[in-house]
Amino acid sequence: MSSGPTLRIDLDSGVPAYRQIVDGLRILLVSGKLAPGSELPSVRRIAVDLGVHFNTVAEAYRTLAEEGWLELRHGRGATVVERDAPAANAEKVTEFRRRLRALVAEMQSQGASAAKLSVELRNAAIELDL
Amino acid sequence: MSSGPTLRIDLDSGVPAYRQIVDGLRILLVSGKLAPGSELPSVRRIAVDLGVHFNTVAEAYRTLAEEGWLELRHGRGATVVERDAPAANAEKVTEFRRRLRALVAEMQSQGASAAKLSVELRNAAIELDL
Repeated sequence: MSSGPTLRIDLDSGVPAYRQIVDGLRILLVSGKLAPGSELPSVRRIAVDLGVHFNTVAEAYRTLAEEGWLELRHGRGATVVERDAPAANAEKVTEFRRRLRALVAEMQSQGASAAKLSVELRNAAIELDL
Repeated sequence: MSSGPTLRIDLDSGVPAYRQIVDGLRILLVSGKLAPGSELPSVRRIAVDLGVHFNTVAEAYRTLAEEGWLELRHGRGATVVERDAPAANAEKVTEFRRRLRALVAEMQSQGASAAKLSVELRNAAIELDL
């Protein structure tokens, strides 16, 4: 991954590092920016680079391995594997709608304007349509 | 609230009841469906209606009181209060973008199609523009 897409996390954001690593890698995996065959750095390497605990990275790698994205290697690296497309899952769209509404309401409650959130939603839709 | 909007939760969804109550009420509060002056039922009443523990509802009410939406009453009911509009917060839009991308990737990873998620995003944008 060193010459490819970069994983960045923000240790001051209040979001647990584990969550940031899983979310960040999953975005790269879903988008294909990390393609099958790509080798991820060792757990130790990532831990040093990001300034987080070894176990945090190992747990994130395990989560993505359980989701079928990674094959863990001895020496604690990981390879992106060819993943069967998941079965189309209509319930996930319902779950998405619920979680999206909750997220929008939470952000509005904290001062994000409806107009700006609307723009973000449309931009995300456009990205998906590409 | 008994003659007004209804709070529903799904105890089988895997989402903690506390989270569902906070999210569900916040959506009603942000949208104005629960307007200032509205009286919410007692904690005990909601707990019985939803089939959850008293403390779960009490904690949800406290969270929304801390956010400035509710004033808790003796006898453990709550009143929706006039809330100062939160200061416009550009950082929240950045946080929203990050969390939205993570949510979209998670749902895609679990089998939701990009096309359907895109429709949901546009629908949510339209709701915000109303």
